[in-house]
Amino acid sequence: MAESKNNYCVIMAGGVGSRFWPFSRENKPKQFLDFFGTGRSLLQMTVDRFRPIVPIENMFIVTNISYKQMILEQIPDMHESQILCEPARRNTAPCIAYATAHIRALCLQRAYGWTKDECTQLEGYTKEGSMKGNKSLPKFQDIDWSKPEMQANIVVAASDHLILEEEKFRQTILKAFDFVSKNKAIATLGMHPTRPETGYGYIQYLKDNGQDDIYPVKTFTEKPNLEMAKVFLESGDFLWNSGIFIWNLQTISEAFRYLLPEVADRFREGELLMGTEKEEAFIEEIFPKCPNISIDYGIMEKADNVYVLPSSFGWSDLGTWGSLYELSEKDADKNVSLHSSALFYEATGNIVTLEHGKLAVVQGVDDMIVAEQQGVLLICKKAEEQRIKQFVADVQGRFEGKYN
Amino acid sequence: MAESKNNYCVIMAGGVGSRFWPFSRENKPKQFLDFFGTGRSLLQMTVDRFRPIVPIENMFIVTNISYKQMILEQIPDMHESQILCEPARRNTAPCIAYATAHIRALCLQRAYGWTKDECTQLEGYTKEGSMKGNKSLPKFQDIDWSKPEMQANIVVAASDHLILEEEKFRQTILKAFDFVSKNKAIATLGMHPTRPETGYGYIQYLKDNGQDDIYPVKTFTEKPNLEMAKVFLESGDFLWNSGIFIWNLQTISEAFRYLLPEVADRFREGELLMGTEKEEAFIEEIFPKCPNISIDYGIMEKADNVYVLPSSFGWSDLGTWGSLYELSEKDADKNVSLHSSALFYEATGNIVTLEHGKLAVVQGVDDMIVAEQQGVLLICKKAEEQRIKQFVADVQGRFEGKYN
Repeated sequence: MAESKNNYCVIMAGGVGSRFWPFSRENKPKQFLDFFGTGRSLLQMTVDRFRPIVPIENMFIVTNISYKQMILEQIPDMHESQILCEPARRNTAPCIAYATAHIRALCLQRAYGWTKDECTQLEGYTKEGSMKGNKSLPKFQDIDWSKPEMQANIVVAASDHLILEEEKFRQTILKAFDFVSKNKAIATLGMHPTRPETGYGYIQYLKDNGQDDIYPVKTFTEKPNLEMAKVFLESGDFLWNSGIFIWNLQTISEAFRYLLPEVADRFREGELLMGTEKEEAFIEEIFPKCPNISIDYGIMEKADNVYVLPSSFGWSDLGTWGSLYELSEKDADKNVSLHSSALFYEATGNIVTLEHGKLAVVQGVDDMIVAEQQGVLLICKKAEEQRIKQFVADVQGRFEGKYN
Repeated sequence: MAESKNNYCVIMAGGVGSRFWPFSRENKPKQFLDFFGTGRSLLQMTVDRFRPIVPIENMFIVTNISYKQMILEQIPDMHESQILCEPARRNTAPCIAYATAHIRALCLQRAYGWTKDECTQLEGYTKEGSMKGNKSLPKFQDIDWSKPEMQANIVVAASDHLILEEEKFRQTILKAFDFVSKNKAIATLGMHPTRPETGYGYIQYLKDNGQDDIYPVKTFTEKPNLEMAKVFLESGDFLWNSGIFIWNLQTISEAFRYLLPEVADRFREGELLMGTEKEEAFIEEIFPKCPNISIDYGIMEKADNVYVLPSSFGWSDLGTWGSLYELSEKDADKNVSLHSSALFYEATGNIVTLEHGKLAVVQGVDDMIVAEQQGVLLICKKAEEQRIKQFVADVQGRFEGKYN
């Protein structure tokens, strides 16, 4: 079993969460909300979930600068250097490349004896081979990954997913850590599907080639239509793509280097600046130049060493009102009321969430979303929730950002 | 034409307005709300409507003590002695009897030379025949109504009705003032019906016995069912009962004395205390003893000198969401949005009112009421609005007054 101090966690928390508008808002997206009235936000629940297996100082949250303060308030034992701020919105590949480069820099500094001061004093950016006194930063191909300081098993996860069976989740992550610490493997968690969900991507895996419940991945697929989703479900060869990845530092560094050099090379320009006061300026310069590419497209679908751990620990990406409705406790008429009180009359299948402490009286409507937050009330058929993005755009156009 | 200084106005403002819950609330009923976003409450609009024909010092508002401060804030040029507070809820007859007694006391004090101090110094309550020094209060039957100080033409109106053509309304009132100043007549305004409304009472009048567009009333009827309402409308003999009454002080005083002595006699016990510091204690003692009787049942239906002025000046009692919807400006899909912004998608015939400045996005519902105020959201079919009282009662029972 890998040592805990070698375990790292990267939490992606940059989403704006417009699908849950107006419940989630640009100034307080979904991950920062106490979704289930438990007193903890989804982000806090995510951090807490990893605490038993990843030291808090090894956790990094990648987000937008505008959410940094809120994160520090929500996770008060996290140092601000652990909040990695993206200066632009660039999908998951640049996001993960940044976190990887940051962790790699910390490991390199320790492994090769660079202090933060020494890194900061370097002229310009710190290319491979940079020297100060008798110290040098090795070229990428010369890095000695066997040094103890270079051992880093990394789990990458979203900040806004729900996981019901947390201990089972952690056991799966630990198993994956152990696997990736011994193998040059890119691992992902695949959820056993329970319904023909069209809102998720799927992973087809090679059931006969597995060992110890870890299997090679055959293909990643985009979100299917309902017919295809039913075929996937019946075949038994497909898992939901959870977007939770596990690898070690060397494996993911090499994957970026060889599969996405247009992203990886940007970060290597300033390798030693990570963790210093020069990091922010460096990232502000190079990050916006990164292409907009997802980790799935850029790495997962191209790599030949991808493995999946089929799992089931009550996972949901909470991507839709429908999924939230499905997960929530219902009354006898299948109505859901979150955060607020509600009385229903001749009303079934509705999900209602108002600001804390408010009351809804709902008569004569079925299968609706009723959501109110910060001055905006949305009433919308559950079946039409994909239109919410359009509503947000319309509101933006009409009211110039007043209700974003 | 009657002199303006002899014109008085009594505005009834004690209603709790539960039909418009949650828009109107027990702590701020309908009459105190800026219903149409004009910047003036219905009460303010009512007072303003009378200003050109009634001196402000001759206006009296009958209400519950809990609304007194709000009224003084909304009508800052009104003295607090003009706010007559009912210590209990007792329908319109006691309400109007109180205002009548108050106005009569002021007139008597002036006509018979009693100062407020002298009235206050009287021992106990001031029955007819009370004396102080060489002054005496005449017995009711001995009052000299011909004294100039006893001339008072009084209009009684609700505080929460809408009147669109205000100048036309005032001309009608002035005409009625003139009529009642010359005749022992109880006058009421009847609205020419424009639809078979089942929410109003009707007045049948004797079309052939009128003079100068003032007609004797044949009968008052309760709210009819739809079939009956259609008959009324087609007959041309029926008018909507507006609940706006005009009479002079002598006529209404005598009507109460002879038709409702169980109410009138209570007030005559303390005739001279009105307008003094002893008024409140006196009213608190006698008012709750009054029976719960409406002016329609107690006076209008029993008197033989009732006249109606058929009118049409865009009147509504704003008694229902439906009537408010009918009166309000609609968009191309027949949706109404009051006080707040709203975007509608596949939605028709809805009326939406949120707290000022809020935004509603409404998709996929038709003919609904959507009303939000002070922490309560109501969603209800327009056709089911008569159930709102039940909802309020349910909420009261469930949440112990939190959302009244």
